[in-house]
Amino acid sequence: MKNPDPFVDLRRALLGEIESQEEAGVRIDRERHARTGAPEVIYGQGKSPDQIVVAARKLIESEGRVLVARVDGDAVAAITGELSSVGCEIAHDTLGRTLVAMRPGTLPVPTGGRVGILTAGSSDRPQALEAAAVLAEMGCSVSLRFDMGIAGLHRLVEPLRETLAHDPDALIVAAGMDGVLPGVVSGLVSLPVVALPTSTGYGFGGDGLGALTTMLQTCSPGLAVVNIDNGIGAGIMAGLIANRAASQRSAGR
Amino acid sequence: MKNPDPFVDLRRALLGEIESQEEAGVRIDRERHARTGAPEVIYGQGKSPDQIVVAARKLIESEGRVLVARVDGDAVAAITGELSSVGCEIAHDTLGRTLVAMRPGTLPVPTGGRVGILTAGSSDRPQALEAAAVLAEMGCSVSLRFDMGIAGLHRLVEPLRETLAHDPDALIVAAGMDGVLPGVVSGLVSLPVVALPTSTGYGFGGDGLGALTTMLQTCSPGLAVVNIDNGIGAGIMAGLIANRAASQRSAGR
Amino acid sequence: MKNPDPFVDLRRALLGEIESQEEAGVRIDRERHARTGAPEVIYGQGKSPDQIVVAARKLIESEGRVLVARVDGDAVAAITGELSSVGCEIAHDTLGRTLVAMRPGTLPVPTGGRVGILTAGSSDRPQALEAAAVLAEMGCSVSLRFDMGIAGLHRLVEPLRETLAHDPDALIVAAGMDGVLPGVVSGLVSLPVVALPTSTGYGFGGDGLGALTTMLQTCSPGLAVVNIDNGIGAGIMAGLIANRAASQRSAGR
Amino acid sequence: MKNPDPFVDLRRALLGEIESQEEAGVRIDRERHARTGAPEVIYGQGKSPDQIVVAARKLIESEGRVLVARVDGDAVAAITGELSSVGCEIAHDTLGRTLVAMRPGTLPVPTGGRVGILTAGSSDRPQALEAAAVLAEMGCSVSLRFDMGIAGLHRLVEPLRETLAHDPDALIVAAGMDGVLPGVVSGLVSLPVVALPTSTGYGFGGDGLGALTTMLQTCSPGLAVVNIDNGIGAGIMAGLIANRAASQRSAGR
Amino acid sequence: MKNPDPFVDLRRALLGEIESQEEAGVRIDRERHARTGAPEVIYGQGKSPDQIVVAARKLIESEGRVLVARVDGDAVAAITGELSSVGCEIAHDTLGRTLVAMRPGTLPVPTGGRVGILTAGSSDRPQALEAAAVLAEMGCSVSLRFDMGIAGLHRLVEPLRETLAHDPDALIVAAGMDGVLPGVVSGLVSLPVVALPTSTGYGFGGDGLGALTTMLQTCSPGLAVVNIDNGIGAGIMAGLIANRAASQRSAGR
Amino acid sequence: MKNPDPFVDLRRALLGEIESQEEAGVRIDRERHARTGAPEVIYGQGKSPDQIVVAARKLIESEGRVLVARVDGDAVAAITGELSSVGCEIAHDTLGRTLVAMRPGTLPVPTGGRVGILTAGSSDRPQALEAAAVLAEMGCSVSLRFDMGIAGLHRLVEPLRETLAHDPDALIVAAGMDGVLPGVVSGLVSLPVVALPTSTGYGFGGDGLGALTTMLQTCSPGLAVVNIDNGIGAGIMAGLIANRAASQRSAGR
Amino acid sequence: MKNPDPFVDLRRALLGEIESQEEAGVRIDRERHARTGAPEVIYGQGKSPDQIVVAARKLIESEGRVLVARVDGDAVAAITGELSSVGCEIAHDTLGRTLVAMRPGTLPVPTGGRVGILTAGSSDRPQALEAAAVLAEMGCSVSLRFDMGIAGLHRLVEPLRETLAHDPDALIVAAGMDGVLPGVVSGLVSLPVVALPTSTGYGFGGDGLGALTTMLQTCSPGLAVVNIDNGIGAGIMAGLIANRAASQRSAGR
Amino acid sequence: MKNPDPFVDLRRALLGEIESQEEAGVRIDRERHARTGAPEVIYGQGKSPDQIVVAARKLIESEGRVLVARVDGDAVAAITGELSSVGCEIAHDTLGRTLVAMRPGTLPVPTGGRVGILTAGSSDRPQALEAAAVLAEMGCSVSLRFDMGIAGLHRLVEPLRETLAHDPDALIVAAGMDGVLPGVVSGLVSLPVVALPTSTGYGFGGDGLGALTTMLQTCSPGLAVVNIDNGIGAGIMAGLIANRAASQRSAGR
Repeated sequence: MKNPDPFVDLRRALLGEIESQEEAGVRIDRERHARTGAPEVIYGQGKSPDQIVVAARKLIESEGRVLVARVDGDAVAAITGELSSVGCEIAHDTLGRTLVAMRPGTLPVPTGGRVGILTAGSSDRPQALEAAAVLAEMGCSVSLRFDMGIAGLHRLVEPLRETLAHDPDALIVAAGMDGVLPGVVSGLVSLPVVALPTSTGYGFGGDGLGALTTMLQTCSPGLAVVNIDNGIGAGIMAGLIANRAASQRSAGR
Repeated sequence: MKNPDPFVDLRRALLGEIESQEEAGVRIDRERHARTGAPEVIYGQGKSPDQIVVAARKLIESEGRVLVARVDGDAVAAITGELSSVGCEIAHDTLGRTLVAMRPGTLPVPTGGRVGILTAGSSDRPQALEAAAVLAEMGCSVSLRFDMGIAGLHRLVEPLRETLAHDPDALIVAAGMDGVLPGVVSGLVSLPVVALPTSTGYGFGGDGLGALTTMLQTCSPGLAVVNIDNGIGAGIMAGLIANRAASQRSAGR
Repeated sequence: MKNPDPFVDLRRALLGEIESQEEAGVRIDRERHARTGAPEVIYGQGKSPDQIVVAARKLIESEGRVLVARVDGDAVAAITGELSSVGCEIAHDTLGRTLVAMRPGTLPVPTGGRVGILTAGSSDRPQALEAAAVLAEMGCSVSLRFDMGIAGLHRLVEPLRETLAHDPDALIVAAGMDGVLPGVVSGLVSLPVVALPTSTGYGFGGDGLGALTTMLQTCSPGLAVVNIDNGIGAGIMAGLIANRAASQRSAGR
Repeated sequence: MKNPDPFVDLRRALLGEIESQEEAGVRIDRERHARTGAPEVIYGQGKSPDQIVVAARKLIESEGRVLVARVDGDAVAAITGELSSVGCEIAHDTLGRTLVAMRPGTLPVPTGGRVGILTAGSSDRPQALEAAAVLAEMGCSVSLRFDMGIAGLHRLVEPLRETLAHDPDALIVAAGMDGVLPGVVSGLVSLPVVALPTSTGYGFGGDGLGALTTMLQTCSPGLAVVNIDNGIGAGIMAGLIANRAASQRSAGR
Repeated sequence: MKNPDPFVDLRRALLGEIESQEEAGVRIDRERHARTGAPEVIYGQGKSPDQIVVAARKLIESEGRVLVARVDGDAVAAITGELSSVGCEIAHDTLGRTLVAMRPGTLPVPTGGRVGILTAGSSDRPQALEAAAVLAEMGCSVSLRFDMGIAGLHRLVEPLRETLAHDPDALIVAAGMDGVLPGVVSGLVSLPVVALPTSTGYGFGGDGLGALTTMLQTCSPGLAVVNIDNGIGAGIMAGLIANRAASQRSAGR
Repeated sequence: MKNPDPFVDLRRALLGEIESQEEAGVRIDRERHARTGAPEVIYGQGKSPDQIVVAARKLIESEGRVLVARVDGDAVAAITGELSSVGCEIAHDTLGRTLVAMRPGTLPVPTGGRVGILTAGSSDRPQALEAAAVLAEMGCSVSLRFDMGIAGLHRLVEPLRETLAHDPDALIVAAGMDGVLPGVVSGLVSLPVVALPTSTGYGFGGDGLGALTTMLQTCSPGLAVVNIDNGIGAGIMAGLIANRAASQRSAGR
Repeated sequence: MKNPDPFVDLRRALLGEIESQEEAGVRIDRERHARTGAPEVIYGQGKSPDQIVVAARKLIESEGRVLVARVDGDAVAAITGELSSVGCEIAHDTLGRTLVAMRPGTLPVPTGGRVGILTAGSSDRPQALEAAAVLAEMGCSVSLRFDMGIAGLHRLVEPLRETLAHDPDALIVAAGMDGVLPGVVSGLVSLPVVALPTSTGYGFGGDGLGALTTMLQTCSPGLAVVNIDNGIGAGIMAGLIANRAASQRSAGR
Repeated sequence: MKNPDPFVDLRRALLGEIESQEEAGVRIDRERHARTGAPEVIYGQGKSPDQIVVAARKLIESEGRVLVARVDGDAVAAITGELSSVGCEIAHDTLGRTLVAMRPGTLPVPTGGRVGILTAGSSDRPQALEAAAVLAEMGCSVSLRFDMGIAGLHRLVEPLRETLAHDPDALIVAAGMDGVLPGVVSGLVSLPVVALPTSTGYGFGGDGLGALTTMLQTCSPGLAVVNIDNGIGAGIMAGLIANRAASQRSAGR
């Protein structure tokens, strides 16, 4: 069988071969990357700095590096203090609200997967950067371009052409407000498009709901959607598509 | 004052100069056209054939012609039977579900107003035809073009150019599903666009709600919205815009 | 053809004649005013002061003036500091939350278009002022009157008569709470009415949703709606209607 | 104490003085009229003809008469067959969908309470008639007038004046679509207004939700709301107001 | 005709006999109390202290007293400073968030109307106090009792009996969470019940929506609803009912 | 360990000891009753008669009996034809829309668990009967009583006392409309209450949503909720509670 | 009769044997624990520290101990100050936001009931701790385990086995986001599961609504739901189930 | 550039090289397959048989074959009659509601792309078959397995292992009700999962909304969502992923 047994971890747990340790309410899934191709990401939102630090330390121990999303202020300081004191390097993106801590020399293995990211507005950058951060952890190369919404459709021409020139395996298209751009792009290209609605907007349908329904209702072929502002989810979906394509490229060689 | 007193009918009613007769639960507003520039339209939906016939007969008496919307089957037969027996001509559009009954020779006075109507899909035709019907009653000339949604954006080029060649005073753009077309058109032209969401669609945001939110959230300038499937409302709004422009054209001459 | 080719900018972009430069995530649509008759407005909401300053500077360079909406405190200070140091004049409306920066002598060209603005309550003034600000940029003359909601219907008489005495080409009627005023006005006049729901209200249907549904459901003829609190959108729609009428006036002369 | 003990029936039940018999799933509240001033009404909707007949027969036995609401076709036939065979008279209102069965000579005792009912549209008649039916059972006199919505505000003048000429103790104002009429009336009179939203309408906010929010959000003083299409509830509320006022009139004499 | 002409103010306005002055965006309806039996109340929420002061000063001038609702902190200080300097007395209820300013000796004329107010929880007191404040302005006497929700049904017995001992003309019953109390009370008494949902609650249906639907769906007779937290609206509705009954009492004597 | 390993079937499947056969799109979970204490129920709704017959036949083969829910007309005829021809007995409850097919002699083993079921209205009987049907399959004894809603609270006294006289281990309380009864009962007893909202109702909050929110928002202790009209779910929950209590009774003996 | 008369307190109140004293808007239900098996819990949310102190003092007087939920900062300080000064011990759980005040020696009587609590994520701990707190007041023993959501299904194996090893009478399973865990657990065990949705999440369906619908729609047997974040409600429901089972255990012995 | 210019058709249209013919309201996008990799699919829903026949005939002319979705009864007969008379072969899947008409010998070119489809319930088959139909048109090979929902988790083991044995490039996982299966699968495999919510369900969150929110809220990595019942959309998205991977396989060889 070309794929590993999907139940490998479950079977091992049933047979008592994997322990499931909990600390400060956190139970790390150390096998996630091997099993699903995606790293375990720590969502900072709604967690105390202490909880984030515990989880981050555990993942540093087993994986050598860790990505924290939706993280600001106190939590960034707490993680930085704790982990740099044990020799970790810290990279914090304030706009995308992500933080990567890593033991020196633990770079992600490049897969050869390629993803292009486009945004409709300049306000959609944080979500795009969140997606880019997790794609980097998955070993993909990423190209980003911002602010080409349909109010001035001609602004789409140059960045879309440039993006395709990199021959991406998948596109992520982020949009708030009316959420129109993913469908327009999807109607122009033959690549799978991951549509990422953002909470930019106001009034009825604001907070991303108008953008989400537009993307779900699109009459353009070849598009699927993640939740509002879910840059991590968009990144992992696009990364799995790109890494599948990349593995076939290299397998064929 | 160039505009008539907006309270003319209310003042006359307060002074007892306008009677307010009711028959079969219907109280016709005979002064509507003079006061608002729009004809009183009978909505067939939710009314019994008898009620429609009563209202239609009254309007024939005072106006010479009447437009009935959302009308099918039994009601069409009832109106046709009643009104053709008193010498009216009947024109019924089965797709747009409108019916016009008129005394011979009672054509609407052409105003010179011009409106262009575009639809995103072929399923949006009924709403477009409903709008066209009320525009005809308001004396406007109308050009219609169908099925140029953004899944194949190039299909928009020819019909939009043709529509603008008629130099319209306003556009109506109808769309269901993702409701994207009005915003795309609005970003390309310098005319006021009346966006008409339709109940074409399915799943979450279907029944026109996804289209409505897209249009309300649009980042394109120069667009306002009527309710889902409200072809009559879109028509009257566009007609008032066009008739205002036309009156200025002729006034200047 | 009396209208310019709607695809002129798109065609030029496809042929490489328009570059699409991005700075700080912002990609200005310099051709917007010529193409759509509406200026590019910068929405301050959800943008950092830096992003606003970048966009404002670019538009000052190409257009000589710029309108920023939804702008307060730090952003106002940042823009004022940056742009007054390069010789711009700054006009800030704290109630309407708009700011205009302009090179000396760059006034909008008056079009002769005329718009009347009415509000149901005194709390709807900010949205009305936002609409007035963009209308001024479009060269229209504006008359404003506040607080004539239907709880005391007689309060409508005098301001509506005064408004009509200016012979406007279009009306904007703003209302929160029950959102009734636009339909009442629309039933009294023969002008196109742009209905502007505001987020004044409380309880079920508050935040403008009750007002929005009232306006969408209105049985009065001749009204279309923009999103909740979307003063900019209402202003541009009314401005396009008025400028179309004004162009026909002057063309006829 | 001028009011009876509100817990009289509950106390009697706790002491075993009231039995609670069930038949075919129905447990009649024979004491309702005495305790609450409102008759027990049988809702036909969602009940089988058999269930309705059982409940109707029980109420005929204890009260001499019974009002059935939301009743059509088979159920009307079944009730008529069953109850006319035991000497009852049957009055069926097809438009209001109500049926009254009564033993000869069991007329409601007139209370002297007076209620005026107004509707915005001709489609709101069924709900108004449902309210009128329960008011008749409560001994109130009722005046009804239809179709005076705000699209032609002058149509309101004559019927509202006529209604007030009867010196009603309370008004019921029914409206669908935008639901504006109750607030307009409430702003003109010093009587309590029971607002009755109806499910007339379409698109977003249709099915009465737009009307309901308008009435809940009204800025007019002196108005409370019942559920969509709840003519029975509006009638009982207005009947209790009117009967309270009537009891004070007669008590004073 | 026993009622005054409802259109008296509208007619006077149409004939130019009432001016409609606006100051700081506010257009006072001085005739409201005479026309509708309810005072004009100033909603503080969403208004600047300056706006409130302008409106309060105008009403003091014409009416001698004024009720401001939803008012806290800065606005209370501003009104107190402004109006006490011109000899007004100020009464501020911090829990109910209302403020009354009055010229000495301008007490409301007692009508003899009587209203009982009950609340389901202790958290519903602010809304009950808001209703009591406007009832006092309307000349009604009020009895208040708190915290008798259905989780301990026996707690209802004593306060409901005490309330009825005052022979009220109407009841206001306030409840948040599940909103059950108004229906329970309505099923026990023969008085009209104004149901007042409050925004006490959490999770799905919190913010008063669960309470509102319970009240709209109630199967108890004799209840109508105002919007969530709308203590003013509940007070005016109950006040009109009570004042109508009281006027009949005194008329009969 | 007193409980069986919850993963027994999963472990056996992972080791290949349980086959997972599919026929006509159906994959029966034969181990469900042993593992979860609840039978596999076939939902007829949305399935073709053929699909139901396939699933029913399989369960008859392995279990000897089968419960089908939401089943009418053609499906009942198809199942009856197919299964009575192979010697099964068929019991069909038209009101509760359930059908039980069984091999002669395959009665459920009585557990001694006891459940009481109460409904607020007579229209809630179908859901109560659906719950009773699945409880019978689980070996519980059931007592049912109908129509004791809070509009006439005294009607609750006798049936609730009778129900408690059977000393039930759990109660199911079904209610539509305002959904009040479960909270009232829960405030009176010390038993766990499974609240079952039904889709009886109309207008805003109809279709069970008002009832559901009432039950979720209840301030009474000791109540949990199943989905609207989910009689099967309510029955299984109450059955598991009762069977747990019964097992402790018999274990202790 | 094995159960006490459910109407005992209501009957005593009707006969005047229970007084219903109110202080600071609070009316304590001293009989709640005896009648319903659940303690009266004070919800701190939306109450002033003063109100909480009044209620807590009253319950200390009658019960000797009191549980306060949703309590932080000032209120904790106020209660601690007030009640420790009269000799109470205070236990405050900052994560679960609960506080217990007790007279020395007033421990809850152990019932022998056993409940297991599981959470899907580490962010669901506060709600689980809230449930645990009320279970402790009800005399139940509780086992808690955190963070075993389905993204890494194998993590469920060990904690679920450990939980079942304690032979619980009921389970509480808390989950936010997609709310999947309760259904997965319910499909594996034969115990009643109380599903507790939490407000952990983001985007569409966030704030617990997605989790709530998942739990209401579950196809797993044997699960009922409480409102979002309603740890108290989940605890009382599970406590009643467990205490019923425990009473049968001890009764049998 | 490895990808074709995305604007090729738009550029050709702007230069007048592509005509945009409309017939019966339909404007076919003949270039769609080449441009986007997805065929133009005709949605039968909401279209008259005549409209479908016109569109189908046009696509047969240009493409040789056509896929019609959501098609039943009269439309199937009409298409079959029209197109078989011109030599087309017709394949109609009644369960999936799709129809393929083709000129003999016009089979889709196999791409080597591989997709696995799993469903949670037996009621989700129609949507899965719809997805399979469009995948066949895109040249992919498909494996389908049904009914392995989480109520009996062990049923997932065998079909998921079998599916992976075919080494698919992407998975489609369809589920209604609680919509849990896609997240469970996504947590077990390293393939991109297209989640397809279906409208199977009832009560609150029924009609697919509960399933949709579950999938959007999933905490499992590597999943994106299409609209409720959108089998075509899921198929095209999975097909593009698979065809991208397949193109890399063959390119490498």
